[in-house]
Amino acid sequence: MNPIKKHKLPFTLLITTLISSASWAESTKQDALYPRINQKSERNLSYDWPILKVGTGSYEEGPTGVTVFHFERKVNVAVDVRGGGPGTVNAPYMDLGYDMAELDTVVFAGGSWYGLEATTAVATALKDDGLRDGDAFSLTPNIAMSVGSIIFDFGARRLNEIYPDKRLAQSTYRAAKTGIFPLGPHGAGRSAISGGLFGCNAYSGQGGAYREIGDIKIAAFTVVNSLGAIVDRKGKMAACYPGENWPQNAAMAEVLAKYPDNLDNWDEQKQQQASSKNTTISLIVTNQKLSQAELKRLATQVHTSMARGIQPFTTIFDGDVLYAVSTAELEENTMSSAVLGTVASEVMWDAILSSIPEQPKAAIPKSNLQLNKQYLNKLTGKYTFSEFAQVEITNKRNKLYALATGIRDVFAIGRTSATELIPVSKNEFMVPGRYPLTLKFETPDQLIINPGKWQQTAYR
Amino acid sequence: MNPIKKHKLPFTLLITTLISSASWAESTKQDALYPRINQKSERNLSYDWPILKVGTGSYEEGPTGVTVFHFERKVNVAVDVRGGGPGTVNAPYMDLGYDMAELDTVVFAGGSWYGLEATTAVATALKDDGLRDGDAFSLTPNIAMSVGSIIFDFGARRLNEIYPDKRLAQSTYRAAKTGIFPLGPHGAGRSAISGGLFGCNAYSGQGGAYREIGDIKIAAFTVVNSLGAIVDRKGKMAACYPGENWPQNAAMAEVLAKYPDNLDNWDEQKQQQASSKNTTISLIVTNQKLSQAELKRLATQVHTSMARGIQPFTTIFDGDVLYAVSTAELEENTMSSAVLGTVASEVMWDAILSSIPEQPKAAIPKSNLQLNKQYLNKLTGKYTFSEFAQVEITNKRNKLYALATGIRDVFAIGRTSATELIPVSKNEFMVPGRYPLTLKFETPDQLIINPGKWQQTAYR
Amino acid sequence: MNPIKKHKLPFTLLITTLISSASWAESTKQDALYPRINQKSERNLSYDWPILKVGTGSYEEGPTGVTVFHFERKVNVAVDVRGGGPGTVNAPYMDLGYDMAELDTVVFAGGSWYGLEATTAVATALKDDGLRDGDAFSLTPNIAMSVGSIIFDFGARRLNEIYPDKRLAQSTYRAAKTGIFPLGPHGAGRSAISGGLFGCNAYSGQGGAYREIGDIKIAAFTVVNSLGAIVDRKGKMAACYPGENWPQNAAMAEVLAKYPDNLDNWDEQKQQQASSKNTTISLIVTNQKLSQAELKRLATQVHTSMARGIQPFTTIFDGDVLYAVSTAELEENTMSSAVLGTVASEVMWDAILSSIPEQPKAAIPKSNLQLNKQYLNKLTGKYTFSEFAQVEITNKRNKLYALATGIRDVFAIGRTSATELIPVSKNEFMVPGRYPLTLKFETPDQLIINPGKWQQTAYR
Amino acid sequence: MNPIKKHKLPFTLLITTLISSASWAESTKQDALYPRINQKSERNLSYDWPILKVGTGSYEEGPTGVTVFHFERKVNVAVDVRGGGPGTVNAPYMDLGYDMAELDTVVFAGGSWYGLEATTAVATALKDDGLRDGDAFSLTPNIAMSVGSIIFDFGARRLNEIYPDKRLAQSTYRAAKTGIFPLGPHGAGRSAISGGLFGCNAYSGQGGAYREIGDIKIAAFTVVNSLGAIVDRKGKMAACYPGENWPQNAAMAEVLAKYPDNLDNWDEQKQQQASSKNTTISLIVTNQKLSQAELKRLATQVHTSMARGIQPFTTIFDGDVLYAVSTAELEENTMSSAVLGTVASEVMWDAILSSIPEQPKAAIPKSNLQLNKQYLNKLTGKYTFSEFAQVEITNKRNKLYALATGIRDVFAIGRTSATELIPVSKNEFMVPGRYPLTLKFETPDQLIINPGKWQQTAYR
Repeated sequence: MNPIKKHKLPFTLLITTLISSASWAESTKQDALYPRINQKSERNLSYDWPILKVGTGSYEEGPTGVTVFHFERKVNVAVDVRGGGPGTVNAPYMDLGYDMAELDTVVFAGGSWYGLEATTAVATALKDDGLRDGDAFSLTPNIAMSVGSIIFDFGARRLNEIYPDKRLAQSTYRAAKTGIFPLGPHGAGRSAISGGLFGCNAYSGQGGAYREIGDIKIAAFTVVNSLGAIVDRKGKMAACYPGENWPQNAAMAEVLAKYPDNLDNWDEQKQQQASSKNTTISLIVTNQKLSQAELKRLATQVHTSMARGIQPFTTIFDGDVLYAVSTAELEENTMSSAVLGTVASEVMWDAILSSIPEQPKAAIPKSNLQLNKQYLNKLTGKYTFSEFAQVEITNKRNKLYALATGIRDVFAIGRTSATELIPVSKNEFMVPGRYPLTLKFETPDQLIINPGKWQQTAYR
Repeated sequence: MNPIKKHKLPFTLLITTLISSASWAESTKQDALYPRINQKSERNLSYDWPILKVGTGSYEEGPTGVTVFHFERKVNVAVDVRGGGPGTVNAPYMDLGYDMAELDTVVFAGGSWYGLEATTAVATALKDDGLRDGDAFSLTPNIAMSVGSIIFDFGARRLNEIYPDKRLAQSTYRAAKTGIFPLGPHGAGRSAISGGLFGCNAYSGQGGAYREIGDIKIAAFTVVNSLGAIVDRKGKMAACYPGENWPQNAAMAEVLAKYPDNLDNWDEQKQQQASSKNTTISLIVTNQKLSQAELKRLATQVHTSMARGIQPFTTIFDGDVLYAVSTAELEENTMSSAVLGTVASEVMWDAILSSIPEQPKAAIPKSNLQLNKQYLNKLTGKYTFSEFAQVEITNKRNKLYALATGIRDVFAIGRTSATELIPVSKNEFMVPGRYPLTLKFETPDQLIINPGKWQQTAYR
Repeated sequence: MNPIKKHKLPFTLLITTLISSASWAESTKQDALYPRINQKSERNLSYDWPILKVGTGSYEEGPTGVTVFHFERKVNVAVDVRGGGPGTVNAPYMDLGYDMAELDTVVFAGGSWYGLEATTAVATALKDDGLRDGDAFSLTPNIAMSVGSIIFDFGARRLNEIYPDKRLAQSTYRAAKTGIFPLGPHGAGRSAISGGLFGCNAYSGQGGAYREIGDIKIAAFTVVNSLGAIVDRKGKMAACYPGENWPQNAAMAEVLAKYPDNLDNWDEQKQQQASSKNTTISLIVTNQKLSQAELKRLATQVHTSMARGIQPFTTIFDGDVLYAVSTAELEENTMSSAVLGTVASEVMWDAILSSIPEQPKAAIPKSNLQLNKQYLNKLTGKYTFSEFAQVEITNKRNKLYALATGIRDVFAIGRTSATELIPVSKNEFMVPGRYPLTLKFETPDQLIINPGKWQQTAYR
Repeated sequence: MNPIKKHKLPFTLLITTLISSASWAESTKQDALYPRINQKSERNLSYDWPILKVGTGSYEEGPTGVTVFHFERKVNVAVDVRGGGPGTVNAPYMDLGYDMAELDTVVFAGGSWYGLEATTAVATALKDDGLRDGDAFSLTPNIAMSVGSIIFDFGARRLNEIYPDKRLAQSTYRAAKTGIFPLGPHGAGRSAISGGLFGCNAYSGQGGAYREIGDIKIAAFTVVNSLGAIVDRKGKMAACYPGENWPQNAAMAEVLAKYPDNLDNWDEQKQQQASSKNTTISLIVTNQKLSQAELKRLATQVHTSMARGIQPFTTIFDGDVLYAVSTAELEENTMSSAVLGTVASEVMWDAILSSIPEQPKAAIPKSNLQLNKQYLNKLTGKYTFSEFAQVEITNKRNKLYALATGIRDVFAIGRTSATELIPVSKNEFMVPGRYPLTLKFETPDQLIINPGKWQQTAYR
């Protein structure tokens, strides 16, 4: 389904018109993109915590997005920056040890370092909306403090470099509401993947979990975009397009025991390029009052614990960051720090597992499908995804072939020799391989790769 | 097109026209503001270093602004974050020790944490303009890395909370050019002040200095917005509205020797509110190739050395940050690290001193000036600077009085009792005190406080 | 068996004489202790890496000890300090990013912060022996660099506060040899325990593992003294005195799922005191050449990965530290950093598991054993372990009772009411409970608690 | 004056005997050295602060020493590690932000990294003496926390590598007393020098200053061993053997203005070797209660401020560390943090200046002095300072010549050609140059270089 078609609002029509009458170039320009805010999700986390509001927004043309956590009043925050390529705003300030409630929002976004614009944009929205100002005279801190981090969701996974920008972030912030958090490919996790180190390349997304123990509330949120693969509590890989000859439903311990021998056949250089930028960004929130030192310890403990649910974790190719927030609503009947951290770590593992969406499956070729030459010829031509990704479709003896003609490969469709497309239906074709690759021709003049949640659209 | 050339009328008139048809509220809305880019400066630093381009932009209605340092190709960077309230983007990344040239731009801005939007906006401008992308496949780092910091320029020094935003920052970045750097109240230093700890409240700005030693180039830039006062090489306070009974042309050592006794008469609570947010942000650049460890040491040494030119430095109320950049253009005929750091520290001291503009002087009352009642009555009424700052002008026995009626004092004009205005000319009045305070009535319906470089305008 | 009796050398005899003719006070004085160096171990790790020498030493009277890793030539080192109570020497230096081989030794010790004396003592031994000096003129670094960390092995686990000192550390360093590393309760791991958060209180020790992949060598060493419990690759708790009503051979996920409800019956205050100080200290070594940034990332990744084998890990009550060393012997045929870190993490998990010794079992009461009054009376009296731990043995109706009369409880023998001792043999008694507790009376005038590897000896 | 001769105690006699009958080798062995504790000083700081006790100890044969600051009860501590080669114990722990009083002692020592043994030795002394234990059950922290740092005092400044060891440190700690602090070449500052970057090579030492403002107490201590030179409040170099053609009583600003041109004639390579290891270690103490964040800010501010009194400061060749302690005795009538930091910075500058001892002056040659051949011949031979420093004295045409025959030069006496000794008196000779160099022949068989406070003794 083409998300652009779905909408019938004037603005969307305008966009559609722009695209049909213009080139791909327009469709991937930031200013032409249409923010989708708080879209419906198949799976949601419900939670009962009025102080905490969440908004998710995306540019479906990427797809990429942003998730905004907005606390209704100032809260305390600590940060644990651990990975080899972190993107952050105001991180050193959080390490100064002040015991003042100062935080307003935590913002997660796609778009690599460009997505940091989302974090700063939410701070200025708080100001522009009059919730916070720059008053140096107020007794309580009143300058908006927005912190945040980003994931790398460019590279091999999509064929454009759209990023979440100020416009998207501010709209998302303004639509934040309490009680519900969409799970899977939403917000900052819109194009997250996991397991690149093993060639898994499984889609993940944003995960969340919530638990109450007596008066204590704990919420965990994470955008899993890790070089490592997600692992469940029984030790199984929870999301992975398995390698050739891998056992069914592999246990991570088995995979690791043979590692790196079980990667023998791959092209390490290529794989490394494809997988060398990842990041898991997380947020743990409790209503228990904690000193700044305790909050920092909580951040460290919970962040470290994630090495169970994501294996490996915090490698040189991950830019992992975790924020820990205490709303300090609860001053009595609290847990000792290590016990709280242990429980919070379990909640975080739940959040990790909840990030996994249903994985696209490879289309099944229809062996006896006959398509005539004239029809196939109509499909040929050059389709453009973005300034750096195009495919040329040709017809050779009534078989369609695809060749990447931009500066990058288009998934398994390479640039050196044309790849045969196996028919699935009249206008759908597939390419066999470790990862599903379906090509659907839409009238007029569109080619959609992997139709569905993560589809990529080209225009002829 | 040069935005400066576009206008040929005194720019103020144009603005006045725009504003007179609207309300103050419009005039302080971010979207209504007009970016002034690379405005002429009375004093400039010239330097010969093609790789380094500088742009300065401001919203004169603040006034507040932004300074963008753009390196024409990727360079190495280290950061020294030291103060008690720093604002930064991507600081932890710079501490990871990678020996790769990755930096594109360093962005300094006013606007407290809101001004961080300027840093992220320059990164997205680099992407939108096609100079950098998000390509994970390129052999060299190709994601735009923009780092930066901000100064607090709200509070007592101006009567609005306009901040440098994405629009201003991107315009400024795009106008950056090499060879010239305006000194004083420009760019990020547009509303910088110094010396609050001693009640100096002297205007400062952005400073810069450049030196060549053989093949070695060193440039230093700094926005001095410090709790401490600026000190010259002879130990004199270089910019300060002196306290009562202070010696003429006081040596800092003398002031400090009696400190804090020489502050006896002040209202510490009030003073602290007024001065509790400051920041000096600096950049040292060399063409000498340095390892990442050496570059970090250079940052530390030069940053520490600034305690000579700014006294005190890096207090709990300063958020000082210094960036050190090596363009690595020069691999031979270089200096040992400590010698380089020593010379660079002298260049930085020059930069500090160059930040000081000519200070406004108090207007001289005209004792025999007679203004008639009808004329004075025409000036009375309520003048509004912004949503939180207004003054009510009244006429009492042919003397004008001013009372602050918003939620803040208007400089020395308080909110509890009306302050007498002493006539200076037909439409200018002054209030005696440690700091110059002039009020000028402009037709139609404008009241300008301290006409000139840092003027604040109210509308009736 | 009393280790003091075991030795027949003159020095030992002297000590024995001192003890029999003097008081416990002598036996727990540091200067009276006899260093045991490289004692035989039931289990050992063998490795083939001439550059790396290991020595282990202990004071059996504690018991407590020290483990010295000595590299035959200067190597590179990075450190990851993570826990809530770390003890370190020279840690900031290792974070400066210099790419110079400077490290000589890594020293692990018991004795809490007092054990840091072992680290500095090995540096001075290197100097005293003439291997390193303080020469500022040499082209290569020639000052001995000894870094190290300690575990807390005081508290509830033993009844004295003997610590590893300079004398022990220097003897151990001088006896270091290559090829063999004793596993379990040796060296710094002599009195290590794990799992206090769950009340496990299982003995652990020092673990090690070694792996070669092509030309790459990886060795992992760890002293597991963690608040969390050790977990094997199938998710089972690998060492724990289980709680009442716990399932047999519990999976950690099951225990955590009910946590903290499954701790309902315990005395949290008491438990916290008993378990609030822990530390796991680790060392990962590779011969692959790495930049300082890569080495630091390796430290971070491997340290984080330990959260799988120790659950929870790096809590506020752990002072975890990991050192990463590259000998840089191998410059070719190396792995990419993330792959190396992933493999090294598996080697470290092996090391964690290898730290577990066979756990003491509770003695079985002999129900029909009759001991006559005169015999029992001979056993009564006050037995002293150290200045703060004594038990008073009394005979009441032909049953022995024990009461702790010092300032601390003696394991399950409390200070408020006497505990009945159940006879096991003529001179052995036991106290039922979660943890084995056996008391053995030895002539003349000795009471040994839990005879065996971790025995505690008192003198009447 | 030979300090060894000065003492008449049996132990000293023993040492003297050992030396006269044995070789230099014995005299520079650590175990043969005699601790001198709390020796008289010409200049002392008096202070009134019972909680703070100070001890100083030295091995005069180095000379090198140790300074112990012992707080009578647990106090709060923060640390600012800044330089390029710091030596520290337990530094990361101090950065965890805990608001608990835990510190017992701060220990400063000479001996480069070997001197860290002094810090750990004081911790174990506190334990051995029963003041602290390892009790995990006590409600208040009761494990001794000893932190500390070292200066590099080997290299060109002395002809042996004696270091402060456990024995010296524990004796010094046990002799600590309140109220007095010796200024100049004592304790850790025994062989400190400053100004190597300019070739100053002036002796410095340990400095201290104390100030009361109302109820507030502030004490500052520092061991100045800096690459930079000491500067007074008028901008003059306070201690320096000036370079040729330098102005009399040079202002630092003048020297720096011409820097590095005014170093043209020197041998940079040699100079760098001689001066590449330096460190200034400092302690600021206040009785004002501060939060951990405030204490850390105080450390940063005061440490930074030292760049005024030592120019340059915290270079890559300095390992500067500052400890900040709050005894929290005063909870009321306190200063705001920035004001306190400003005053404390002035106290620290006083401390820096107080570290300078009277500098040795060059001896004046006696032109008409005639010494006969037989007498001179008696002085010839090989004199040994240590295993690496010897001089051969020869007589050539009734003039004495000295040649360094060890592996190092002996000050200005080189190894390639013999240096003529100019007679000053019958048994004293001098060598002209930038630095005083006097040789005195003592019977029997001793050669003393620069007799006095920093003399170096050789044996024939």
